[in-house]
Amino acid sequence: MDPELIRLANDIANSIANKIRGEDKNRLRKNIGVGADGTPTKLIDKMAEDIAIEKIQESPLPVNLLSEEIGFMDFGGIYTIILDPIDGTRNAVRGIPFYAVSVAIGKDRLKDTEYGIVINIPTGDTFFAEKGKGAYLNNHRIISPQYIPKKPLYSIMMSENIPEFIFDNHIRSLGAASLELSLVAMGAIDCFVCTKEYLRITDLAAGTLIVREAGGFVYDIEGRELDMNLDVTERTSVIASTNERMIFEILEVIK
Amino acid sequence: MDPELIRLANDIANSIANKIRGEDKNRLRKNIGVGADGTPTKLIDKMAEDIAIEKIQESPLPVNLLSEEIGFMDFGGIYTIILDPIDGTRNAVRGIPFYAVSVAIGKDRLKDTEYGIVINIPTGDTFFAEKGKGAYLNNHRIISPQYIPKKPLYSIMMSENIPEFIFDNHIRSLGAASLELSLVAMGAIDCFVCTKEYLRITDLAAGTLIVREAGGFVYDIEGRELDMNLDVTERTSVIASTNERMIFEILEVIK
Repeated sequence: MDPELIRLANDIANSIANKIRGEDKNRLRKNIGVGADGTPTKLIDKMAEDIAIEKIQESPLPVNLLSEEIGFMDFGGIYTIILDPIDGTRNAVRGIPFYAVSVAIGKDRLKDTEYGIVINIPTGDTFFAEKGKGAYLNNHRIISPQYIPKKPLYSIMMSENIPEFIFDNHIRSLGAASLELSLVAMGAIDCFVCTKEYLRITDLAAGTLIVREAGGFVYDIEGRELDMNLDVTERTSVIASTNERMIFEILEVIK
Repeated sequence: MDPELIRLANDIANSIANKIRGEDKNRLRKNIGVGADGTPTKLIDKMAEDIAIEKIQESPLPVNLLSEEIGFMDFGGIYTIILDPIDGTRNAVRGIPFYAVSVAIGKDRLKDTEYGIVINIPTGDTFFAEKGKGAYLNNHRIISPQYIPKKPLYSIMMSENIPEFIFDNHIRSLGAASLELSLVAMGAIDCFVCTKEYLRITDLAAGTLIVREAGGFVYDIEGRELDMNLDVTERTSVIASTNERMIFEILEVIK
């Protein structure tokens, strides 16, 4: 992977995190249109996306952009920056301190992702992974623990078809998939579950690479290792865990 | 309220937040005994509590301490510092960035609370309230919005008896009651629900004052305005909202 391209991805992520951290939340919650993914665009998303577009246009590297609001912008590159300018927009505009910027570098599909960075905006914690080179939190290597506690901790996206047995465990619902995946990678969460076809490649590309590079696993509820097209209108379910057996137990109950 | 007593409470809260922020999380997750509330004491709780005891012993003010691990320490004061050294211990030791120190000043019951401060340790956000003088986030006055969005955002503590209709809304489950109450006060969360008799006065005293001083409401699921004895073995349910009607709707379904 070209280190210049990684530098560009990091620069986009850091610039967005720094900009949003300094902004007035009341202003940011204004809706200003409808994005390529069909949901209302908040000013906060648009502002963050504009930073990425500017950085890509300034860069001498030919790299495309796939982002939640603007969709696909073809700059004639082999690589594409897969951006969720604000993952956890609802948390951000409401004032719940759990949202992130997620930037990945990929080619044709989610599985091709070669680099991913997720920055927790309120705390500054930075997760990143490069394919084949491991996953990191604030420059310390993270490795998914194989050990699962007797009573595991799940983070779930609430919907009707969550298997009952999960509720006997410790439950969180945190509302920002890229961060929830990053917390799975470091073993802070044992399993992240979204049974509804809700999440987009922009939410998932960086976080999925971070989990896999830490030694964890990411599936959809059909039991396939997660993969997706570079398309912001496509949505998927996700089950991610440090422990593959936990995923199979959930799949067994769902099917 | 004696400004020296408020200064002592703030000093305890800030000292604990600063100490914990700098610590190695792996060390902190060690269990070291069983506390006055009957749950295992983590090193993180003990370390934080020791800071409070030291500050109170150093202070010329006669003030008692009620804390999760050590229980009640009588220093012959009229007032008692009601401390949760780490609210959201599980989040803290797992690495989920949502936990707080909660310090309140009270007399004989939760309703007597005259001052409360809650510090979000990973972000540094500081909520406080003084009885009759309003609630504040980082020194800006917060006032609970009366407006409730069409699809409200709940933070719930998962248990069997959560009314079904709540799941049609936006759901979070964040795992640190003092912070969830503070987020209700500022309108980031529309309603916080814990239907199980689980929460203690140490988790609730500061957050409850912050909600009420911001103009919001805190009840138990019997429909009483929340009150409790100064006793760490007593546990209660909680429903808190910026909007009293939301609480009555939930109470109606539960009874």
